[in-house]
Amino acid sequence: MKKIKVAIVGLGRMGKAYAKNLHYKIPDVDLVAACSINKEELAFAKNELGLTNTFSDYDQMLKKVELDAVFVISSTDMHAEHIIKGLKAGLHVFSEKPLAITYKACKKVEAVAAKYPNQLAVVGFVRRFDPSYRYAKNKVDSGAIGTPYLVRSQTVDKDTIAEWQIQYVTKSGGIFHDFNVHDIDLARWFLGSEMKTVWSVGGAYKYPAFTDAGDADNVMTTCVFENNTMAVINASRTAMQGHDTYTEVVGTHGTLRIGRPAAMNRVEIYDQHGIRQECVETFWDRFQEAFLLMAEDFVDCILTGRQPELKLSDATQATKAATAFTKSFKEEKLVKV
Amino acid sequence: MKKIKVAIVGLGRMGKAYAKNLHYKIPDVDLVAACSINKEELAFAKNELGLTNTFSDYDQMLKKVELDAVFVISSTDMHAEHIIKGLKAGLHVFSEKPLAITYKACKKVEAVAAKYPNQLAVVGFVRRFDPSYRYAKNKVDSGAIGTPYLVRSQTVDKDTIAEWQIQYVTKSGGIFHDFNVHDIDLARWFLGSEMKTVWSVGGAYKYPAFTDAGDADNVMTTCVFENNTMAVINASRTAMQGHDTYTEVVGTHGTLRIGRPAAMNRVEIYDQHGIRQECVETFWDRFQEAFLLMAEDFVDCILTGRQPELKLSDATQATKAATAFTKSFKEEKLVKV
Amino acid sequence: MKKIKVAIVGLGRMGKAYAKNLHYKIPDVDLVAACSINKEELAFAKNELGLTNTFSDYDQMLKKVELDAVFVISSTDMHAEHIIKGLKAGLHVFSEKPLAITYKACKKVEAVAAKYPNQLAVVGFVRRFDPSYRYAKNKVDSGAIGTPYLVRSQTVDKDTIAEWQIQYVTKSGGIFHDFNVHDIDLARWFLGSEMKTVWSVGGAYKYPAFTDAGDADNVMTTCVFENNTMAVINASRTAMQGHDTYTEVVGTHGTLRIGRPAAMNRVEIYDQHGIRQECVETFWDRFQEAFLLMAEDFVDCILTGRQPELKLSDATQATKAATAFTKSFKEEKLVKV
Amino acid sequence: MKKIKVAIVGLGRMGKAYAKNLHYKIPDVDLVAACSINKEELAFAKNELGLTNTFSDYDQMLKKVELDAVFVISSTDMHAEHIIKGLKAGLHVFSEKPLAITYKACKKVEAVAAKYPNQLAVVGFVRRFDPSYRYAKNKVDSGAIGTPYLVRSQTVDKDTIAEWQIQYVTKSGGIFHDFNVHDIDLARWFLGSEMKTVWSVGGAYKYPAFTDAGDADNVMTTCVFENNTMAVINASRTAMQGHDTYTEVVGTHGTLRIGRPAAMNRVEIYDQHGIRQECVETFWDRFQEAFLLMAEDFVDCILTGRQPELKLSDATQATKAATAFTKSFKEEKLVKV
Repeated sequence: MKKIKVAIVGLGRMGKAYAKNLHYKIPDVDLVAACSINKEELAFAKNELGLTNTFSDYDQMLKKVELDAVFVISSTDMHAEHIIKGLKAGLHVFSEKPLAITYKACKKVEAVAAKYPNQLAVVGFVRRFDPSYRYAKNKVDSGAIGTPYLVRSQTVDKDTIAEWQIQYVTKSGGIFHDFNVHDIDLARWFLGSEMKTVWSVGGAYKYPAFTDAGDADNVMTTCVFENNTMAVINASRTAMQGHDTYTEVVGTHGTLRIGRPAAMNRVEIYDQHGIRQECVETFWDRFQEAFLLMAEDFVDCILTGRQPELKLSDATQATKAATAFTKSFKEEKLVKV
Repeated sequence: MKKIKVAIVGLGRMGKAYAKNLHYKIPDVDLVAACSINKEELAFAKNELGLTNTFSDYDQMLKKVELDAVFVISSTDMHAEHIIKGLKAGLHVFSEKPLAITYKACKKVEAVAAKYPNQLAVVGFVRRFDPSYRYAKNKVDSGAIGTPYLVRSQTVDKDTIAEWQIQYVTKSGGIFHDFNVHDIDLARWFLGSEMKTVWSVGGAYKYPAFTDAGDADNVMTTCVFENNTMAVINASRTAMQGHDTYTEVVGTHGTLRIGRPAAMNRVEIYDQHGIRQECVETFWDRFQEAFLLMAEDFVDCILTGRQPELKLSDATQATKAATAFTKSFKEEKLVKV
Repeated sequence: MKKIKVAIVGLGRMGKAYAKNLHYKIPDVDLVAACSINKEELAFAKNELGLTNTFSDYDQMLKKVELDAVFVISSTDMHAEHIIKGLKAGLHVFSEKPLAITYKACKKVEAVAAKYPNQLAVVGFVRRFDPSYRYAKNKVDSGAIGTPYLVRSQTVDKDTIAEWQIQYVTKSGGIFHDFNVHDIDLARWFLGSEMKTVWSVGGAYKYPAFTDAGDADNVMTTCVFENNTMAVINASRTAMQGHDTYTEVVGTHGTLRIGRPAAMNRVEIYDQHGIRQECVETFWDRFQEAFLLMAEDFVDCILTGRQPELKLSDATQATKAATAFTKSFKEEKLVKV
Repeated sequence: MKKIKVAIVGLGRMGKAYAKNLHYKIPDVDLVAACSINKEELAFAKNELGLTNTFSDYDQMLKKVELDAVFVISSTDMHAEHIIKGLKAGLHVFSEKPLAITYKACKKVEAVAAKYPNQLAVVGFVRRFDPSYRYAKNKVDSGAIGTPYLVRSQTVDKDTIAEWQIQYVTKSGGIFHDFNVHDIDLARWFLGSEMKTVWSVGGAYKYPAFTDAGDADNVMTTCVFENNTMAVINASRTAMQGHDTYTEVVGTHGTLRIGRPAAMNRVEIYDQHGIRQECVETFWDRFQEAFLLMAEDFVDCILTGRQPELKLSDATQATKAATAFTKSFKEEKLVKV
């Protein structure tokens, strides 16, 4: 069986996770090269993955190594550039979300990708690949809950990393781009329409430093869609219980709730605190299976010629909406997307 | 032990329920008179409660019967008038919510009540008396979840009565006044602040006739409070599972969810549908204990001279906010409360 | 409306609770007399309930006060004698469980009761009156789970009172009579048959003093019924989470679980312990509504002439089985009931 | 990195699942040969796994192919023979449970294995590798629930395959060997002791044909252990809700419940049936992750020289107990293990 030759750029926390999936868990993939500007990350590639082709220069990697595809897991501000260069080098490109934090940058990538119609360019919205989300989508598509008209969706982190995130928000685009881009994609997916008007509110209720950084620790956005359906989207950096991400789809004939409780496993504890379940700590704990399924799906599309469900335009729409959220939050008014 | 003499006006579905509580379940009360413009309702008072003093004219009842208090459970549009007349007759007055559907009418009642400082005038927000809501409030007040900054609250009816409600919405003031006035009161209660700006969205997703009646079957409102905290408030007439009312209070150090699942009882069913709990059918099934506790609390305030927690101004604020919700929904814009 | 005149004997923890229900919550009852050998308990009757007829001698009370019924809430070892004297005095008698801790004593009461066919003699198995248990019984009777063939039932106390109970076990008959008599009654109720063979095991796993007292802190009994169905019945004095009583009825076409989780209320807590519900502390917290419904049902049977569902023979069978459990536990062998 | 060369014998439903795990999901393994007496199964090996070395004769496979290890997934009655031959051929051997259905056959395998101390011989009790069970075991070992004294454990199949199983029970050893061998292993694991006395009861409540086959569709066993702790172990072929396997470990300071609800995924459905979760259909749906982790653990033991936690004697003890269960059930009496 032919294996596809893959490189990765970016080996931070997420990059390492992707690299291990590509190296150990997807038999159809040969992870042959890695690029990072960080020495510790390159050492990981050499020592733990046994890669001999490691680069600190992305252009050099694309030039020197024979590749079929590249995974762009670099920092958010580099995604667009790395995707474009990958496409120009003749590769299929998978990128972590978001595509970019400006609409303009997204459209630029779309324009380049349009010139390479035989190469895949996919931004990964991982929740679409989670088995529970997938199951819910199939239920909705089969008419099990009638016509969906309301989505509630939240991305909620355990507050263990809130303080560490303060320095990170300037690069990530802020809480709407970094957290809610997932919820935006899901609301569009379930409601089958584009956002028309949004109102975002929130604040730095626990860590005032987020206000100083022009961001927030908790936000909420109400959205009306072109088909008059609605969504409410929350993000939080300060949950005590764990990574408590969930989505609820309300239809005329039923409701689906996906992801609650955010239980760590199938163990219930009965003790002096009552009856309880412990929660997943991080989004990785919650979605690690989906990350693998997402990479497998990308590889399968390359091998079989199947078109991926996710289009670049999905990523562009998500960025457009997150930008509108940010504007609404900062200017304290309704914003047209 | 002295018993207080009580009359009731209005013996519809809710009035009958109040009357039975007053008659059978509160030993400190003598239910001595009832008033209704409806013959079937007066027949109920005579035949089922054994009341001899029944009236079709409210003024006559107040004039002819010696009373300590009156319960106003008439239709929403009569609340204000019935409260004012009761006060002027020297009685303590308990009224079902809402106080009135205009701010002006509320302020008028407040002005009258101010002249009778020794008589109680209370509008019943029943959820404050539900043991689970009370327990949550005590937890919040004790600091168990830190500082609350977000309330999610919904009033959701099983869709069995949606069609019947269409003709009723003109009298009730619409879905915001009829459903969300409770959620507004709870959000104010938990967040300790007044609403500043609101945005209401929604539509008639299942029963288009609500649009024709100037109302909706599902709505959602986002609110920002003067202390910069936030709330999202939903109402639905179309749930399949049952009366699914709940409230979530999110704080800097924990979250409380009150009322979910809306289980009918402590029975779980394992069968071909999976593992499931059936839900309460109506708000009465869910809150019947709270309705009794609320009436007992009012009676206890009369007997002991204790001041009730609920002020008339709470009812006025709720109406003011519900009016702003309605305006925002109709004019499709942000509204200052 | 005629009220029935009621006396109570025994005003300990449970007796006080019964007395308050009879006095404040059942309009058809006049609680007119109380008897106790304990001064503090009589003071409660005088000062808190305002009773003028208080006695330290049961015979005197029966002789001097005009009564319709008596509630026997005295210590277990006095139940049989108090019931018999009540019947002989011409009264309807309600007794707390168990009827007695020997089969012989039960049969003696049955024999006396047989001579007074127009007087009710009922031993209260409170769980049959709990709305969730009642709902489950109706489901089973309607065929919702096919033919029941397995009951799992447990009576589990929070360990806060375990040490206090050590001195109490000699009077109560031990853990099988005191705890499992309820589960025995429920298993008979749901399976519609009598126990044939039992095996009881257990020990004093947390409080060795129970072994010294000839008892245990945790026990488990397997039962085969005459119709070849089966039950497993547990008791525990040592739970950390709360009073965690539940019953599961397994049938050929479905299963019902009654009572789990033993949640205190409808509040879920999200905090550093995960997602949790606090539990009811005591059986009273769990079954207080059922205790009231049970007393109301007894009063209603008196007023309407309706026969109660519970027969004295139900109590005799429960004692017979609990005695067999005890024998099996002590002799470490299978026992025929 | 060196890969180990592995063969598999038996490619039925479970064998295929093992083979796919070995072939696609464990990078350290080269699945090089397969053996089956069934043509369809060999065709699967050739066509779907691309194996060239396929055999209908186990001896031939061991003789002709260079191997490091063999996976024995043949029918229960062949396990012992296939394990012994594998050991004699110098291989590490993994076998599906049970080791054998007689104590004597187990001891014979143990005796052979003792002669090959440098080769692994492991019988897979898959639940020990399930992350939730593992998490619970770690909690217990850390003292989180004090001293465990009661295990409740059940293996419950959805009744979709009950009728198909009737013909299968003669080969499998019956419901105690086929279902409860897992629960026996878990009870020993959590309680740290061997069973002393057992009583098994049950019957064919839904499918009388099991009685004719000398088996049952629902059984329950009570066990006392040498350290005086206890267990109750159930098996059912007739659940409506799904594969509902779970285990509860009760200790002096807390309780852990593993596996309930047996939810298929993280989706809750709100509809006319109430609020519900659908369940896993089969044990494979529930434990597929654990089957992979179990195979990976075996491979890792081979590669690293680490000793597996599971000993052959664990499998022998499980068989010994299941045999005692069967005897107790058939002879209707207490049995010493």
